[in-house]
Amino acid sequence: MNIHLLRSHIEKIVPLSDEEFALVASYFVERSLKKHQFLVQENTLIPYEYWVVRGLLKVSQIDSSGKEHILQFAMEDWWVSDYQAFFLHKEATLSITCLEDCQLLAISYEDKEKLCDELPKINTFVRKKSHMGYIALQKRILSLLSNDARTRYEQFLELYPSLLQRLPKSLIASYLGVSRETLSRLYS
Amino acid sequence: MNIHLLRSHIEKIVPLSDEEFALVASYFVERSLKKHQFLVQENTLIPYEYWVVRGLLKVSQIDSSGKEHILQFAMEDWWVSDYQAFFLHKEATLSITCLEDCQLLAISYEDKEKLCDELPKINTFVRKKSHMGYIALQKRILSLLSNDARTRYEQFLELYPSLLQRLPKSLIASYLGVSRETLSRLYS
Repeated sequence: MNIHLLRSHIEKIVPLSDEEFALVASYFVERSLKKHQFLVQENTLIPYEYWVVRGLLKVSQIDSSGKEHILQFAMEDWWVSDYQAFFLHKEATLSITCLEDCQLLAISYEDKEKLCDELPKINTFVRKKSHMGYIALQKRILSLLSNDARTRYEQFLELYPSLLQRLPKSLIASYLGVSRETLSRLYS
Repeated sequence: MNIHLLRSHIEKIVPLSDEEFALVASYFVERSLKKHQFLVQENTLIPYEYWVVRGLLKVSQIDSSGKEHILQFAMEDWWVSDYQAFFLHKEATLSITCLEDCQLLAISYEDKEKLCDELPKINTFVRKKSHMGYIALQKRILSLLSNDARTRYEQFLELYPSLLQRLPKSLIASYLGVSRETLSRLYS
């Protein structure tokens, strides 16, 4: 059932025949995690990338002073991993934690490379998704460099209106790089 | 001559036969620009991506108050474009300006897609380069969220030691998201 949601997701970019999708599906395994569980822990190897079928996760890093910084959230239809660890076979420097019960589809690094070699359409799909991710991160950098707290908050609401109800305000403040007090003023 | 530098660059990730590289080379055209010239201007269409053979460029955006923010620099061996405009066929929201005389190799969107279709190795090369770019932007976001000015400056020196001599201090300050005064204190 869940695997068919992945088909719709991929077919937004490349159409697949039933045989092609059967090959894709054969490389994924399902994983379920409960709220508060870790998907990725710092200082461990991360051999998987995940596609979120259902649920919400946060990707974060604790700095040397013990403060948590939110790199991103991941919800339905998003891909998530510690990509530096995943691509370079290093230990994770990020933590990924379930903020809700989560259902995920996992693919290993080796299987992803094999799939990209076997099915050029998937190579193209992954390339194009990566380009879109790159653009989104560029926008976030410009937002952090240029905008005041109110503008950042408004951009967040515009991009992710559904997340406002699903996230504690403290996590939104951390994602935006503003204090909780500043965020509270923006709510009022 | 310049095109052979591109071959070494690509072969760091995927080996190419002479025939394959001849195909790659046939899609690129050389461009030369003088210091201070624009490669990309805001509100124009950007049908090309560029690989920097020689020179240094800045990618920036002017905010609504007229302040310039530096998204990134690009030097030898780097790819550069306004990727949102390039991939989505939209008008540029970024400016790209030559900080030195520049020699570039340009490929159009249509030719890049054609080349990725014709040569799966190049599809894989572009996918992997995009993943590395994604990781670099994630690090920059975490740096902006978590580090003080001194740490950001030290990270910049560690990542790009050669750029320190080639860039005016005001541009480094803008890239780091700190004031020129703060940066001057870090120099002293």
